[in-house]
Amino acid sequence: MKKNDRTDLCSIARAIDKIGDHWSLLILRDLGQGLTYFDEFQKNLLIAPGVLSKRLSTLVSEGLVRKELYQDNPPRARYVLTKAGEDFLPVLAMIMVWGNEHSSPSGLDTQLVDKSTLKKISPIVVDAKTKEPIEFSKLTFAGGPANSAAKIKVLTERNMPLAAVN
Amino acid sequence: MKKNDRTDLCSIARAIDKIGDHWSLLILRDLGQGLTYFDEFQKNLLIAPGVLSKRLSTLVSEGLVRKELYQDNPPRARYVLTKAGEDFLPVLAMIMVWGNEHSSPSGLDTQLVDKSTLKKISPIVVDAKTKEPIEFSKLTFAGGPANSAAKIKVLTERNMPLAAVN
Repeated sequence: MKKNDRTDLCSIARAIDKIGDHWSLLILRDLGQGLTYFDEFQKNLLIAPGVLSKRLSTLVSEGLVRKELYQDNPPRARYVLTKAGEDFLPVLAMIMVWGNEHSSPSGLDTQLVDKSTLKKISPIVVDAKTKEPIEFSKLTFAGGPANSAAKIKVLTERNMPLAAVN
Repeated sequence: MKKNDRTDLCSIARAIDKIGDHWSLLILRDLGQGLTYFDEFQKNLLIAPGVLSKRLSTLVSEGLVRKELYQDNPPRARYVLTKAGEDFLPVLAMIMVWGNEHSSPSGLDTQLVDKSTLKKISPIVVDAKTKEPIEFSKLTFAGGPANSAAKIKVLTERNMPLAAVN
């Protein structure tokens, strides 16, 4: 059974399984920066063609990337982010923030900027309602209305909340 | 050479390399939910002990997790998030948001809640300055003051901005 179909897993686990490995994350990053051709990814990532081809196919079949034929003869394709792929960019932005803080021994080396003004944007995760920064030490993950019996069993065994108070 | 030391990579790539694979992400999620003992991770993740042991060692050596001996004879340890590990929780929260939207066929199944009130928190990435949601299609990643000559070469070849306007 594909992990993606396992209803005893939480959406974090399913998402991680769906995205794939570190190559997929770097391909998504490159797509988010406007790279679009197979050769561009290959050159930028120094990735073996077979591996790149496989990762792109997976991203396409999982719905994060769309393959567009832009020439018939010989057939040539480019790759672009779908809505689901674009929705993954906030995750990459927060990985960048973490990397700048905890994995950049020489200091700040990657920034998110507005394409036209080059002004720096500092991404931060806040509570959508209050716009206040989230104190993660006070939070935990909980179940939701779509939980399967299998997932409820896991949550109960771990004394985790089964649902949120809205 | 460890990827982590390669200054031609961006902080996203280094961060991804530092975190490791999907198991490491799930271990960090469990640590963020208060799981702390080897047996708890093993039971919850259905992970082979050898794999779990290796992933925990990597997370400790990369500085995201601290191993604490809480009993001498026989020696027993628990695992807790360091500051760097806690700083990774916003990434997992945004993976949850993506998973709920794009990888939860039966509907909402994982929520972030306040431990004491069980009130639901909806995490969102905003511009730290304006508190407005970020339009990722208008943004790109750029270099920063700590860029190595190798990284500047890559950015130049790709016509990427070398630095932000502050």
